[in-house]
Amino acid sequence: MTDAVKPASKRVRLKRLNKRGAYDRASIDAILDAMPLAHVGYVFDGAPYVTPTLQWREGDHVYWHGSSASRMLRAAEDTEVCLTVSLLDGMVLARSAFHHSVNYRSVMLLGRAFKVTDPEEKAERFKGLIEALYPGRWDMLRPVKAIEVKATSVLGMKIAEGSAKVRTGPPIDDEEDNALPIWAGVVPVSMRMGKAVADSYVPAGLGPPAHVGKIRIG
Amino acid sequence: MTDAVKPASKRVRLKRLNKRGAYDRASIDAILDAMPLAHVGYVFDGAPYVTPTLQWREGDHVYWHGSSASRMLRAAEDTEVCLTVSLLDGMVLARSAFHHSVNYRSVMLLGRAFKVTDPEEKAERFKGLIEALYPGRWDMLRPVKAIEVKATSVLGMKIAEGSAKVRTGPPIDDEEDNALPIWAGVVPVSMRMGKAVADSYVPAGLGPPAHVGKIRIG
Repeated sequence: MTDAVKPASKRVRLKRLNKRGAYDRASIDAILDAMPLAHVGYVFDGAPYVTPTLQWREGDHVYWHGSSASRMLRAAEDTEVCLTVSLLDGMVLARSAFHHSVNYRSVMLLGRAFKVTDPEEKAERFKGLIEALYPGRWDMLRPVKAIEVKATSVLGMKIAEGSAKVRTGPPIDDEEDNALPIWAGVVPVSMRMGKAVADSYVPAGLGPPAHVGKIRIG
Repeated sequence: MTDAVKPASKRVRLKRLNKRGAYDRASIDAILDAMPLAHVGYVFDGAPYVTPTLQWREGDHVYWHGSSASRMLRAAEDTEVCLTVSLLDGMVLARSAFHHSVNYRSVMLLGRAFKVTDPEEKAERFKGLIEALYPGRWDMLRPVKAIEVKATSVLGMKIAEGSAKVRTGPPIDDEEDNALPIWAGVVPVSMRMGKAVADSYVPAGLGPPAHVGKIRIG
């Protein structure tokens, strides 16, 4: 069964374009799981900052991390943040400038960020990140060191308030414009994974493990 | 000659990872021009909001737009905003969890947003957006209507304060880890444009104009 996410009180309820809004957890989770790149918004001295960072989901929480020296991460602890994940799926060309659009999937999550402080729990979260991107890789790696755990901050947020927005399909032109001899349609956009490039230290004959060929974004 | 952008006073100067920071306009403009999807941060009742939106650059300004009914756009006028554009260029797999990374290009711009209010200037900006994405398309379209100009808000910001960050290249493992028999390297990530799909009203025989095949993102 899919839990519904609180539709963000009044503050994020989608007043416009409600047909594009969705609050169910399945929709939200699918978008979070499809795109590791997130944009996290903080307020710092009253002004907004938006930083790109990797996010990963574990159950009902979303996490992100960065250097323990990061002023943004320090400022984010126990304050309101906004974590947004977006995928560009297509360029939508209409017969009028006004109806041009893009196809996309996006999630906006609101809430108070908490900091993961227990070293063992932090290491578990690092494992969560690695395994989310590259299943099976964690156990192949040189084990994590205490100093690395210390040097990294992990922030999390419960998936509780927010929304997903999705646009799919062709342009929606004004009815009377559809007869115009103007090409209109969609150019799909997707993320392509290229051929893996080993670094110069990989011994001859050591090919990439299976998870490298299975990376999917989008 | 390339102008330097003010390195964001103290508030955004890149205290960490300075080797990844760049303040020259050529670097910033190249990233803005490569990716129309931006994430704009606003402060609304003291909390941060990050909304995905299309941005386009005209000279020394960056613009974005949306419905005139949008609370975010209304809240943004003449207040501090942060516009961030990011491109994910590769997944970087190292021999330790700690040194995993991503290759990316990103720009963070800070400043006060202004609203374009003059209807003729707004129409010029719509043209700027269409032509940035699809050179030559504006003149093929059904002309813009006054009501459409009114229904759309255009916000702009001078490119004056901010920074670009770029990571490229292989993983940087701890020296002593390079001898480990663990595969490490980069999986390139890029944006792929699919085959254009005409909508159901396009007359038989009317193929897409040249700009459709020339869309490049990334």
